[in-house]
Amino acid sequence: MGINQKEILQEIKILDGGHICTPKGFFAGGLHCGLKRKKHDLGWLYSIVPANAAAVYTTNLIQAAPILVTRESIEVDKQIQGVIVNSGNANACTGEEGYRHALLMRHYFAKKMNMKEEHVAVSSTGIIGEQLPINKVLDGINMIGKVEESVANFEKAILTTDTTQKRACVQLEIDGKMITIGGAAKGSGMIHPNMATMLAFITTDANVEQEALQSALKTVVDETFNMITVDGDTSTNDMVLLLANGLADNTKLTPDSPDWLHFIQGLETVCQLLAKEIAKDGEGATKLIEAKVIGAAGEEDAKKLAKSVIGSNLVKSAVFGTDPNWGRIVCALGYSGVDFDTENISVFIGPYQLFANGLPVLFEESEVKTYMEENNEIQILVELHEGESSAIAWGCDLTYDYVKINASYRT
Amino acid sequence: MGINQKEILQEIKILDGGHICTPKGFFAGGLHCGLKRKKHDLGWLYSIVPANAAAVYTTNLIQAAPILVTRESIEVDKQIQGVIVNSGNANACTGEEGYRHALLMRHYFAKKMNMKEEHVAVSSTGIIGEQLPINKVLDGINMIGKVEESVANFEKAILTTDTTQKRACVQLEIDGKMITIGGAAKGSGMIHPNMATMLAFITTDANVEQEALQSALKTVVDETFNMITVDGDTSTNDMVLLLANGLADNTKLTPDSPDWLHFIQGLETVCQLLAKEIAKDGEGATKLIEAKVIGAAGEEDAKKLAKSVIGSNLVKSAVFGTDPNWGRIVCALGYSGVDFDTENISVFIGPYQLFANGLPVLFEESEVKTYMEENNEIQILVELHEGESSAIAWGCDLTYDYVKINASYRT
Repeated sequence: MGINQKEILQEIKILDGGHICTPKGFFAGGLHCGLKRKKHDLGWLYSIVPANAAAVYTTNLIQAAPILVTRESIEVDKQIQGVIVNSGNANACTGEEGYRHALLMRHYFAKKMNMKEEHVAVSSTGIIGEQLPINKVLDGINMIGKVEESVANFEKAILTTDTTQKRACVQLEIDGKMITIGGAAKGSGMIHPNMATMLAFITTDANVEQEALQSALKTVVDETFNMITVDGDTSTNDMVLLLANGLADNTKLTPDSPDWLHFIQGLETVCQLLAKEIAKDGEGATKLIEAKVIGAAGEEDAKKLAKSVIGSNLVKSAVFGTDPNWGRIVCALGYSGVDFDTENISVFIGPYQLFANGLPVLFEESEVKTYMEENNEIQILVELHEGESSAIAWGCDLTYDYVKINASYRT
Repeated sequence: MGINQKEILQEIKILDGGHICTPKGFFAGGLHCGLKRKKHDLGWLYSIVPANAAAVYTTNLIQAAPILVTRESIEVDKQIQGVIVNSGNANACTGEEGYRHALLMRHYFAKKMNMKEEHVAVSSTGIIGEQLPINKVLDGINMIGKVEESVANFEKAILTTDTTQKRACVQLEIDGKMITIGGAAKGSGMIHPNMATMLAFITTDANVEQEALQSALKTVVDETFNMITVDGDTSTNDMVLLLANGLADNTKLTPDSPDWLHFIQGLETVCQLLAKEIAKDGEGATKLIEAKVIGAAGEEDAKKLAKSVIGSNLVKSAVFGTDPNWGRIVCALGYSGVDFDTENISVFIGPYQLFANGLPVLFEESEVKTYMEENNEIQILVELHEGESSAIAWGCDLTYDYVKINASYRT
């Protein structure tokens, strides 16, 4: 394989408007079953053949019933054919009864679509601590196929306080075949009396060995969804689910395949696009913040530093106020727990250097302020001289609306 | 010694209106030297004899020049006689020149009060990354003794965006002598372009061996100042300084003294009173939040859990909205990193139980809401059944004003 051919193979094409049903053999829909007042609240995803499945779940000690049921399904033979998702109620902290409700959702959806129960994943997001009005959900499942189906309806049905639907899709050539990876996600929505929930569903028609798929997802999630922060709170219901149904007919991908890294890049592109959409749509957010750290001693250090900047309420407030406040950035680096030589740090906001080798730089404040006012994506670059590692984290500004959304939901 | 006498000895009397100069031999004052527009910005504290000194500093990797100079002073013979503090400028990220300025402050104040240089501590809080207008400070030092002196002026001179002065004082009997412990503190103020800074100065006329004093301070700070969170950002300038000048004339206290724990209790009382004042005066705060965790497997677990609750933006916003949102509390426990049996947790807000053994309790929402509206100190109690350890953490609500203060400082 010549270099030119290799370069062509390495191309990843982002499909504008592509989605979870762009990969072959996937169908999805969404409808209103009555958990929310008016909006779509029940979504379903279906592959015409069982797909190899990989999943990453919330690390919160308290895990919602649907998470337990999905884990059980995947454990059987690591395949999933259908996913049923409701919004409006998280079915978390609901004990035995909640667990039975999640089992019922799985059972009815499996029956409806003629699948094995253990090939169904269940997901919920919304209010915690209230029992799911299960009859509404089961009636909703019964309506599948009787209402107009569309991916947009699925994308809407998984949302809570998100303001926009989130989709992404890429195509790449592997083993001479065109494979497609699509995704849909929801971000941090605050639901009475609940917390942010992050859900992402990724589909691909690539043929991928299941263990490799799981390891790829873990790697990619660590670089993407785990690098976003809206308010630092981790939900009881978070989940990223990846289904690979193999209909692209490529030779089965494993970590030994020449195209393995290429596949991972494609997956990472989809996950990164979705993760950025989530960060950008953080509650009350007006701006996406991207913090890039370069020259760190190791990857873990780079990640910790980038996340410390993104997680600082002071940095987030400063971005909202379009205040080029390098002091708060430097301070967040300092308390990140990472050891580095403080006399070697440089900080940039957009193209402007504000801090060089541990000392402030004279800069034209109005220019930086203008950059921050005019851009919806604010780039923060931190340069160390400790090594070769880098990381990027994404977050959003902290605004009056964040407080409003989270303080006044009940009032 | 009979039990009754012992009980009397164990009494700790909180002196309303007592302060850092209530212990024998301490004097303090404050004045305006021109770093701030109008308010007091230079404070000084003086003991008529050198005092044994203990200090706990910020763990931020980036440490301001005055922190470096104070460390150097204390290292010499572990004694401090005078403290010079300015607000309005943190002298942080100011390189060699900033270091020289801190040395100059130490030198001039030592000369002014006829002390050894190494018996002087220096502290600054305010803007970072701008050089200290050193001539203003030195002129200010020269004015000491020429202006009206008062403890209140000291307490004012150390403030930044604090809305109130913070003082505390206790008396207790040790070894047949009455000893007094006083304190002054400042809380989290956001200064252009800076971060929260916490400073506390504690004085006592007790005679305490220096190594024991340092160990007592470390222990007490871990239970008090290190258990408060306003926004999770740790400053470059944080410091707690404790001076014991021995003028109460008790037999020197060491960890082997029968009254050692009693002294620690007195010190803890002062530090806890100041810490709560700081949390209560968090930027934009309207309410103090006290999170108590009982029944944890170990003390570290209890602390982590309590701080996770206090640190959650979602819990903080809910308290601002007087929303009895147990879901966010349970969620914060779940992601604290502590392992516990989720089916055994109970959560109370004030006297109301909202969550019992892992499941929500039916409660009268309006009653809890009324409790939250009518109280300025909101108690959250979390009960586990893992062991005997407990911890308390303090924080404040997250409000529109927090965002306003921190977003719009420059604009």
